[in-house]
Amino acid sequence: MTLTETMRVDIHRLVGELEALARFTETVAPPTSGETAVTRVVFRETDLQAREYVERVAREAGLSVRQDAIGNTFFRWEGSEPSLAPVATGSHIDAIPNAGMYDGTVGVLGGLAALRTLRASGFVPRRSIEVILFTSEEPTRFGIGCLGSRMLGGVLRAEDALRLKDQDGQALDEVRLAAGFSGHLASVQLAQCSYAGSVELHIEQGPLLEQEQVQIGIVTAIAAPASLKIEVLGEGGHAGAMLMPRRHDALVAAAEIIQAVEAAALATGAVDTVATVGMCDVFPGAVNSVPSRVRLSLDVRDIDLARRDAVLGAIVAKCAEVAARRGVRVTQAMVNADAPAACGDGIVRVVEAACAALGVTRRRMVSRAYHDSLFMARICPVGMVFIPCRGGVSHRPDEFAGPEDIGIGVQVLAGVLAELSARG
Amino acid sequence: MTLTETMRVDIHRLVGELEALARFTETVAPPTSGETAVTRVVFRETDLQAREYVERVAREAGLSVRQDAIGNTFFRWEGSEPSLAPVATGSHIDAIPNAGMYDGTVGVLGGLAALRTLRASGFVPRRSIEVILFTSEEPTRFGIGCLGSRMLGGVLRAEDALRLKDQDGQALDEVRLAAGFSGHLASVQLAQCSYAGSVELHIEQGPLLEQEQVQIGIVTAIAAPASLKIEVLGEGGHAGAMLMPRRHDALVAAAEIIQAVEAAALATGAVDTVATVGMCDVFPGAVNSVPSRVRLSLDVRDIDLARRDAVLGAIVAKCAEVAARRGVRVTQAMVNADAPAACGDGIVRVVEAACAALGVTRRRMVSRAYHDSLFMARICPVGMVFIPCRGGVSHRPDEFAGPEDIGIGVQVLAGVLAELSARG
Repeated sequence: MTLTETMRVDIHRLVGELEALARFTETVAPPTSGETAVTRVVFRETDLQAREYVERVAREAGLSVRQDAIGNTFFRWEGSEPSLAPVATGSHIDAIPNAGMYDGTVGVLGGLAALRTLRASGFVPRRSIEVILFTSEEPTRFGIGCLGSRMLGGVLRAEDALRLKDQDGQALDEVRLAAGFSGHLASVQLAQCSYAGSVELHIEQGPLLEQEQVQIGIVTAIAAPASLKIEVLGEGGHAGAMLMPRRHDALVAAAEIIQAVEAAALATGAVDTVATVGMCDVFPGAVNSVPSRVRLSLDVRDIDLARRDAVLGAIVAKCAEVAARRGVRVTQAMVNADAPAACGDGIVRVVEAACAALGVTRRRMVSRAYHDSLFMARICPVGMVFIPCRGGVSHRPDEFAGPEDIGIGVQVLAGVLAELSARG
Repeated sequence: MTLTETMRVDIHRLVGELEALARFTETVAPPTSGETAVTRVVFRETDLQAREYVERVAREAGLSVRQDAIGNTFFRWEGSEPSLAPVATGSHIDAIPNAGMYDGTVGVLGGLAALRTLRASGFVPRRSIEVILFTSEEPTRFGIGCLGSRMLGGVLRAEDALRLKDQDGQALDEVRLAAGFSGHLASVQLAQCSYAGSVELHIEQGPLLEQEQVQIGIVTAIAAPASLKIEVLGEGGHAGAMLMPRRHDALVAAAEIIQAVEAAALATGAVDTVATVGMCDVFPGAVNSVPSRVRLSLDVRDIDLARRDAVLGAIVAKCAEVAARRGVRVTQAMVNADAPAACGDGIVRVVEAACAALGVTRRRMVSRAYHDSLFMARICPVGMVFIPCRGGVSHRPDEFAGPEDIGIGVQVLAGVLAELSARG
C-alpha cells in the first residue's frame, strides 16, 4: 500500500476542532478584528476544559488515554507489537496571554488527525503510536517553559519542581493536585529510549517558509534559550517631594537595562541572536510614587551557545554598571539556560522522504523558538515538521496558518509516523 | 482666655487613633521591619471601614456628620453664629499601594483632635468649624488625584467624572453608588466663599524641616502638577522567532521615553522640577513575547508653570522622535494639568501668629506635593501647616512623623482655627 496516495486528511474537520479548542480562552479579541485571541494558562479552568475537549476527540479516534503526575496526557494507538517502544508525536495546548489559536494546538489536534487518517486508510501500526499533550509549554504561570516535557526528559527534577510557585504564591504541587493530577512528581521522568522516536508538528512562528513559498520546514536543530529574572531595587518616595538629585529610581535604571538588552543582541551582528524583555513589573506602581522595585524577565536565544552566553554576559555586566552608577541594587537569577538540541539524522531523513513521496516543497531549517521536542530529545531521537504561518507572526491574536498548509503538515506527519511505527 | 496656654493636645490618644486607622489596610509590612505598610484604595472595603472609624471618632467628639455624592465627609462643630461661612480643615485617608500611615491621616484625625482640644479648653467658636475628609486624594484607582476636592472646587465637572473608570473598567459612578454615596455628582461642587478659609495640616513629605530642625512649615504656594498617560503601540511576536531587525518592540521604545523623562527634569537645572514615570504596564507581559503595547504614567511638577510646561514639551517631542525612529505609535493623553495655587496672605499671617504665640520655630515654604488645598483654593483662601517627617520620606511604609511634632502641628492648627472661627 502506498500510504501517501490513499490518505486523505479531513482538513475541514480538523479546522473545526482547532476552532472549537480556541473557544476555551480567558480573553477574546474585539469582534470587529476577525481574530481569535487565546489565553489559556496551565491548570486554570480554560486549560482543564480544553484538555477535556481534546480527550473527547482522542477517544472518538479510538485512542486510549493516560496521564502522568504533571498532567502530560498520552493518547495511544496500540500497535501490533505493543512491547516495542512506541513512536511519539504531540505538542501543547496552553497559550500565553492574548495569543493565537495555532501555536501548539496544530501539533496536538493535528497529531490526532494524522492517526485518524492512518486508521481510515487501513494502516495498522507495528509500534504503538502516542500523541502527547505536554503540560505548560508556555512559561506564563510558573516562569519556566516546557514544564511537562522538561520533567519527562529529566531536566527538571521533582525536588526542584516542588519549589515552583505561581505569581500568586500558589505552589505547583498544590495547583496540579487541585487540577486532578495525582501521583508523585518523580514518576514523570521517563527512561532513555522510552520512545523509538518523536516528531512534533508545529507552525514555524517565523517568516522563512512563507517568504520562500516552501510548504514544509524540516527542523535540524532547536535553538538554545536562556531565561533570567532581573530585579532592580532602588528607593521609592513621593513623586512630588523626592527631588531629582536624591533619587535612586528603579524604573529609570531598569530602562537602561532594557535598552542594553536590545543593544547586546544587535551587537553580535548575527541574525540568529534575539534578546527580549517581555515583562516589566513596577512596584509600588502608582502615578505619584517613585518606583522602588522593578522586576524584568529576560529571554535570550541563539543557535550558537557561546554567542548566546556572550550576550548574557554583556547584559549582566551592564546591570552591574547601572547599579554602581545609579546607587541601586540589581540581581539576576537564571530561570533556565538550556542547551540546543540536534534532531535525529534518521528522523530528518524520514521527514525528507515523506515530503518527497507527497511531492511537497521543503527546506531544512533551525527552530529559533523553544519546543517540547527540545526535552524529548533527552530520551529519544526527535524531529519537527514546520508549516508556514502568515507573516511569521505568533503569540498574537492574528497568528494564522492556512487550512491547506495545515493539511499538508498533517499528511507529512502521518507519513512519518507510519514509517517510524513500521520500523523494527 | 489665652488659648495657647490652656490647650493641651492629648497626643497619646491621637497617636492611638492614627495606629488604629492604619490597621485598615490591604497590605502589611513584614513584621520584622517594624513599619506599617498601608494600602487603602478609595471605595474598597478598607476605605469604607476606615471612614466608619473616623466617623466614630468624630461623633465621639460631638461633631455632626454629612456626606456629599462623591463621599467627601464633613464633620461639623456648630458655631454660635451658624449663618456665617464656616472655617474648614481636613485632608484625606486613602493611601497608595504600600504607603505609610501619616500622609493625609494626620490632617483628618489631627483636625478632629484640634477640635477636641479647643472644646476641652472651653472655647466656643463663632463661625462653625468643619473637618473635611476628602475622597481619593491619591490617583490610584481612577488615575486622577484629589477626586473629591477637585469636584468640590469645580475643577472636575460631573459630566467628566461620569466618564471615569478604574483599571477594571468599573465606572466611578457605579462604584460610589455601591459604596453608599448617593445624590447627583453635580451637587458636589460648592459655591465661591462657601468657607471663610481652609487650613490643612500635613506631613511635609520632603526633607527640609528635618534638615533645618524647624518645627512648622508655613506653606505659601502649592506646586503645579501635570499628569499624562503615554501609550506606546509597537508590534508583538514570539521572542524566539521575531528577529531583531524586524522588531518594533514597545518596551524598548518606552525605555527610551522613561530615560528622556529623567533627562528633561534634570535639564532645567532647577531643584523644584521633578518628573516621574510611576507606572509601566506591559502587554501581553509574557517572558517569551515581544511587548506590543506599553502604558506609562507621567507626573511632572514644578512651582514654575512655564518651566513645567517646557519639560512636558521636551518629553512629548522625544516621544515623537522615538515613534518615528522605531516605527511605533506613541500617544499622550493629559490626565490633568493644574495651575499652582497661592495660599491666602491673611491665612499665612494667622499661621505665623499662632506659631509665634506657641513659641515654635517655623519657616515659609512651597509644597511640591499635591494636596486637596490646591482645589479648596478655588472656593476660599487656603493655608497649609507642615510638620517634619523622618528623612523626608513619604509614600513608603517607613514614612514617620514623631508624636511631639504631630502634637505641635495640632496645637498650631487649633490656634489657627480658633482665630479664623472668631473673625467676623
